[in-house]
This record gives sequence, structure tokens and C-alpha cells, in this order.
Amino acid sequence: MYDQLLNIIQDADRISRNGTILEQHSKGMTYHAPQKPELVVYPESKEEVSQVLTYANERNIPVTPFGVGSSLEGHIIPAKGGITLNFSLMNKVVEVRQDDFLVKVQPGITRSQLNKELKKYGLFFPVDPGADATIGGMVSTNASGTNSVKYGTMKDQVLGLEVVLADGRIMKTGGMAVKSSAGYNLTSLLIGSEGTLGIFTEITLRLRGIPEVTVAARALFSSIDDAGTAAAAMLKSGLDLGKIELVDQATIRAVNAHKNTDYQEVPTLFIEMSGSEPTVKNDMELAQEIALGEGCQLFEFESDSLARAKLWEARHHVAFAIQAANPGKGLLSTDVCVPISELPNAIKETRKLIELHGVEAAIFGHVGDGNYHAVLSIDENNPEQVKKIEEINQRIVSYALAKGGTCTGEHGIGLGKKQFLRLEHGEGVELMEEIKLTFDPKGILNPGKIF
Amino acid sequence: MYDQLLNIIQDADRISRNGTILEQHSKGMTYHAPQKPELVVYPESKEEVSQVLTYANERNIPVTPFGVGSSLEGHIIPAKGGITLNFSLMNKVVEVRQDDFLVKVQPGITRSQLNKELKKYGLFFPVDPGADATIGGMVSTNASGTNSVKYGTMKDQVLGLEVVLADGRIMKTGGMAVKSSAGYNLTSLLIGSEGTLGIFTEITLRLRGIPEVTVAARALFSSIDDAGTAAAAMLKSGLDLGKIELVDQATIRAVNAHKNTDYQEVPTLFIEMSGSEPTVKNDMELAQEIALGEGCQLFEFESDSLARAKLWEARHHVAFAIQAANPGKGLLSTDVCVPISELPNAIKETRKLIELHGVEAAIFGHVGDGNYHAVLSIDENNPEQVKKIEEINQRIVSYALAKGGTCTGEHGIGLGKKQFLRLEHGEGVELMEEIKLTFDPKGILNPGKIF
Repeated sequence: MYDQLLNIIQDADRISRNGTILEQHSKGMTYHAPQKPELVVYPESKEEVSQVLTYANERNIPVTPFGVGSSLEGHIIPAKGGITLNFSLMNKVVEVRQDDFLVKVQPGITRSQLNKELKKYGLFFPVDPGADATIGGMVSTNASGTNSVKYGTMKDQVLGLEVVLADGRIMKTGGMAVKSSAGYNLTSLLIGSEGTLGIFTEITLRLRGIPEVTVAARALFSSIDDAGTAAAAMLKSGLDLGKIELVDQATIRAVNAHKNTDYQEVPTLFIEMSGSEPTVKNDMELAQEIALGEGCQLFEFESDSLARAKLWEARHHVAFAIQAANPGKGLLSTDVCVPISELPNAIKETRKLIELHGVEAAIFGHVGDGNYHAVLSIDENNPEQVKKIEEINQRIVSYALAKGGTCTGEHGIGLGKKQFLRLEHGEGVELMEEIKLTFDPKGILNPGKIF
Repeated sequence: MYDQLLNIIQDADRISRNGTILEQHSKGMTYHAPQKPELVVYPESKEEVSQVLTYANERNIPVTPFGVGSSLEGHIIPAKGGITLNFSLMNKVVEVRQDDFLVKVQPGITRSQLNKELKKYGLFFPVDPGADATIGGMVSTNASGTNSVKYGTMKDQVLGLEVVLADGRIMKTGGMAVKSSAGYNLTSLLIGSEGTLGIFTEITLRLRGIPEVTVAARALFSSIDDAGTAAAAMLKSGLDLGKIELVDQATIRAVNAHKNTDYQEVPTLFIEMSGSEPTVKNDMELAQEIALGEGCQLFEFESDSLARAKLWEARHHVAFAIQAANPGKGLLSTDVCVPISELPNAIKETRKLIELHGVEAAIFGHVGDGNYHAVLSIDENNPEQVKKIEEINQRIVSYALAKGGTCTGEHGIGLGKKQFLRLEHGEGVELMEEIKLTFDPKGILNPGKIF
């Protein structure tokens, strides 16, 4: 296999069988059992990806795409060995169309690299998952983050894809128009397909203008209920909320310990708004008024950009805080999403469940979406603990599905949620399997994931 | 067939072979050649839809869904005869979940009926195509309208579907969560599938709070160029634009004639903003400043709700204005969408092309999307004229595709744009055809559309 791939790639530096490299490509950020690929290829062009897939498809060799390995559901674990395609060399901005608010990128660019390059155009890309993931990975899982209450998820940003199919055909979907009704929406079908339908080689994204001003605030409450009620009232008032995140008491404690911050350890809403100055000023005042009316004990602004960055960094690093507090252990992050009015109760039930089982967890939620995470530390070598934590996960998912929610708001199915997909979508899973067979008859693309 | 369907429906009032009824179901609003169904069934439940489809699928009988017949691409023309399913009796609001900003509806409800029912909850559904279409029809074509610059298209509003597959199976996709990464996005695949993959029986939609205030304005320019430059500057400034529509001179003339209005006959931007009062006031002032800086000759506010309604009615009735000016003739509406910076040039080229051919047309564009329409009167009994107008359409589409755009921004492919789909998506059309075969192996669902 090595020699045949070398014949395609023509550069020994871009094919690796090195043990450390294989190890690095054997797992993401979570507790799922690692598995090494047989070798790692670093393609530089769509033609190379196409040739590798043509070769792999002829010989039934599994192919797993890899960005930076920040997956939370084992997506990049080559469950059946084979070839891992590492996209770190395909990380260019292909074209910025400033007046169209568009950018074309290669899949290996990370969101922070992209935003650094966009800054000089006065533009930015809004989707912000916790990790500095690659855009390709973010498309694969339909990622979102704290900005999605204002800007939506990946599926709202991707206008077009260049994709290599399992048999090596190179195809384009979508285009540069903001909207289209031309035939079936293959772009949306590929977004969130977790590398199982095709491999992305170019992605066309919508961009936004960098807002004139951005103001953040923290609103402290004595209970999750009050915080939830206040958040719901803000959403209903039609305020143009940029971010609205609910973090529970135990989670603030973990963040303080990890980041050396001294946030008061009570249920807290982290809020952000952006736009023109008078608009933001007016809307923030209204948000404060609403919060105080719902039992908020303290409403503090952070208009200074450093303090704001620290605040959101603290929020983004919650998973690392749990990891740091439990060295050497793995992580499991739940990812259910419920109808928005159900969120405060769902969070309270989750905290109860976690306390009942005597484990430690951070809980934080995207209040504008109904999506929340319980991040649990897990000793993957202790089968009893793994079982206990998987049971907690199962209970959280069952609760969410009973409320009309989903088992995953933004992380994807991967290895870890396959049993939940069928609970959630029943008959629909058969149609998904038929679509998979249409795109990838031999099942070489990221096998073992989703189904 | 009649007797067997009567056996399913058990109500002779809900099956019709009446000539006038068949005639009413033979065409939409456009010039496409009419074709009658063999009979029309008015289902009242998903079970009835399922039984009709099971029966039709066993016997290879085509089934065409019908809302109010406002399609602009012949979607509801039963091109191969068979059964038309008229959804006018399945027009209920099933459930309003006020605190979740959700509603579940049956497909036959129209957008104005829905908004009437939502008003008492302080909520509204934002997608507003020109016609008072049914929600089912709007899902089928991924409709949008003037509000989409702020709220997005149908694909951004539909959270879940209940759908009857060709073989009669009843399936659910999506759910009540605002976002999900659980498996392939079947909801998005079905949105815009024009009745060819399944028949919707229930639709879960996102709703928005009715804004505190809404203000409209007209900005008059001496050229399309100036109007386009001003619109681009407003979009770039990050203003929260609710609507921004560009209407050319000849179109204003047609509207004046039809609606008895006295709008000055120059290229005009119709603008609307909504939100809290100080925000809207501030943003409108900024918009005015931008417009005046780009050569705007007059910027006039319409905060009075009657004047505003009249203004938007005028805009929504442009197609009828053309129809009224050409009694007895058919309509063709182009629907290309280009990258937004290309819109002013595309509109100018289109006007030139139309003048060159000596025909009459209204041209108006959703500037925030890059989507614009040329509405042409067409004598469907005059083959030479049909040929000429189809040629104009072809030139407009070629221009848009060359700029990276799409042949249809919101109307769909239907009968009229099948040849353009292949030009636009090439290889992708084969995958679409394979998906069609997976969902509907016998090809009974709305045959002759899209492919």
C-alpha cells in the first residue's frame, strides 16, 4: 500500500508510517478507544485526494479524513484501519470575495486562521465551536457554538462544496448564490455527514461584517430557574442577542480553578451583543432591565476587549478545565438539544442525575438554541466507571428525546451516539443508510461512523 | 380508480372528476401548458394520504400534490395525469408552542392564514413569497421572499417534517430542537424537493417575535448603479435590514398603472427595518445617510402601517400588474440569483436584453440575496413569442451561471428549468436522480418535475 500511495503522492514526506504519527491520528479529545490507521497521507490537491480515493475504492481500503483531531465523538478514529487523510497542508484561503461576503477555503484551515486572514477585509466567520477546529471538520459535523443564536450553524454558512466521492469523482454542489432552489440540496445533505458520503476539498462560506462595537455582560442569579426565565424573556423581547450562555455554579467553580479567574460561583448568564453603538447600548440596557426584573443579583458589563476575551476564553475552556482537574483521564461531553423552553429544567435534571451518581461535571448551555453540554471526566481503563457515565449519557439523551429534542446539537453521531440515532430517527435511519449506499457502495468512507 | 379511492376516502364529496375542478388543477400562475389530472382527492389525514399513496404506488399511478396553485414553474401540473392531492382540507394549526417559538401546521395552511392565527401569541412566520402560498408548497420549493435578507429562506425555518413516502410509509424527520447534528439532514433534503421525494403531512416551523416597531422607506435614485451601490454599502455597514428591494423604472410604471399609486418613476430601493424603537430609528438614519451619500435624490419614510402595507402590496403585486396590463396572456418569471455584488449589473444587462427583444417586463430584485425576477407577459398560443421569451430566459440564466449564481433562487425547477439544472449542477444531477430512485423507485411522485 505504501509504495502504491507513494506512486500517487510522489513525495515520501507526505506519507507516514511513523509510530508517533499513527498514534496522533488514533484518537480525538474524548474517551473513545483509540485505533491507529495503517498510514497517514497529507494531500495537497483535490487531484491527489481523488487518486487516493480511486485507489482505496478499488481495493476496499477504509479512508478517514482528519483535521486537527478536536472531534468529541471519535469521528477521526480509523475504526477499521486503512488510510487517514490529514488535511493540514490543504489549509489555504483560495479566494476572498469581499463585496459578496464570501470566502473559498480549503478544508484544513482552522477557524482562527481563517478569521486572522479575514480581519483586513473587515469581515469574519462567525461559527465558533469550543476548539479551534478546521473548517472541513466543522462542515462534517454541522458544528455551531456560542454565536449560533445570532448567525446560525454551519449549515447556514456553507454555500457550496467541492467534494471527492468514494470512487474518486470530483463534484461541486451549490455555488456562490446566497440561496437556491435548484434541485435537491446536496450541500445540506453533505453538511453533517461526518466524512461518510464524500471528502471535502473546497468550501464556500458566507461571511459577516465585523460589527462596530461588541459588548459582553455577566448576569448573576441565585438559581438556574431565574437565569432561565430571564434568558427566555430576553429571547422573546426580540433583542438582537449575539451570544447567551448559561453556566451553572459547579462549572464556574471549575473555570475559576483552571483559569485563575474569580467569577462569583453562582448560576450565570454570559451575554454578548454587537452592532452599531447606539443599538448595542440600547439593547444591553433593555437586557439588564429584563435580568433585574427576573431576580438577577448583579449585571456587569465587559466592554473592554481584553476582559471580554478572557470571559469567553473561560467559557470556551470549560472542557479543558474539567480535563485539568482530572489529569490522565478521558472526557465525555453530552450534546443534547431541547426545545428552548425546556432548557432550564433539562439542566437542573442533569445536575441532579450527576450528583446522584457522585461524579464531577461541568454543565453549560447555549440558551438561545436549547443545546447544552455536561462534560464528564472518565477513566477509560475503569469499565465500571465507563458504564456508569455511559448510563448517565443515556438518561440525558432519553430525557431530551422525550421532550422532542435531539441527541446531538453540534458534535455529531460519530462512534459514540450510534444507538441514539435510531431512537431519534427510527425509519429515517434506513433512508440514511440507503443514501450512504448510493454515495459509497463499498463503504470505504469513514466506516463505523453514524451507522 | 374512482371506486377504489372512494373505498379509501369514504366520502364522495372529497373525490372529484368534475371538469371545472380538474381544469382548476391543470395549471399554476404561468404559461406552462396545462394538463388535467384524472381526479382530485381532498385528504383529511396522514392516514388517508398514506393509503392513497400505497394504492397509487402498487398501480404505478402518478400523484401530484396541490396547495393553492401559485407555483411559477408548473409544479402542480400533473404532467402524466393520475391523482392530484389537494391539501385545502389539511390546513390546521396543529400546535403553537409559544415559549419555544414553534408551530406545527398541516401543509394546506397559507402563510396569511398562519400569521392571522399567530398574531395573538405575539409571534409571526417571516417567509413571504409574492403569492399567499401554502406552507406545504413553500417547503416544496424552498420559497423565500422579501424578508429573507433578515430571516432566511424556508430551509432556515423548517425544523421537522412528517412525510408520507411513495410506498405509503409515514416518516418523521428532524424534531423540535433548533439545531441538530444527528445523521444526514433529511429535512433539508426534502425542502425544495418539489413533491418528488415524499408528500408532507405536518411541518414544524420556527417563529419570530413580532417586532416592537417597523419602519419602511423608499429611496429614489437616478440610476440602477447608484441604487445598487447604496444597497451594497448598507449591507456592508452591518445594518439590521429587514427588507431591501430594488425595483427598476419600468416596473414602478407598471405598478402605478395597476395599483393607482403615484410613485415617482425612477429606480427605487424599498427598505424596511424592524426591532426596538431606538434601534430602528438609529439604523434608518444611518441608511438614509448612506443613501444620500450615494446619490439618492429622495429618501421617504413610511412609518404609518397603512402606507407601509400599500407600499409592500405594490411590490408584492408586480406580477399581477404585468398580468393586468396584458389581459389573457400568460406569465413567465425568471428567478436567477447571483453573488450579491453582481446584482446591479445583472439587472442592467437584463433590462438591455429585454429592450433589445422589444418585449415588456417588470424587473425587481431582492438586493440582500442577489435574487431578482424579470416578469414577462407571454402569449402561450404564439409559438414564436414563446420561443423568443424562452430564449431571453436562457440568456438570463447563462449570465447568472457564468457569475457563479443559480438558475432559481426561490421558485424551483419544476417543468420550466429542467435543462438549466444540468447546466448548473452537472454530475450532481446524477446523484439527485439516484436519491430520487431510492425514495420513489417507481417514479409516481410528481413525475416530470426537476428531472
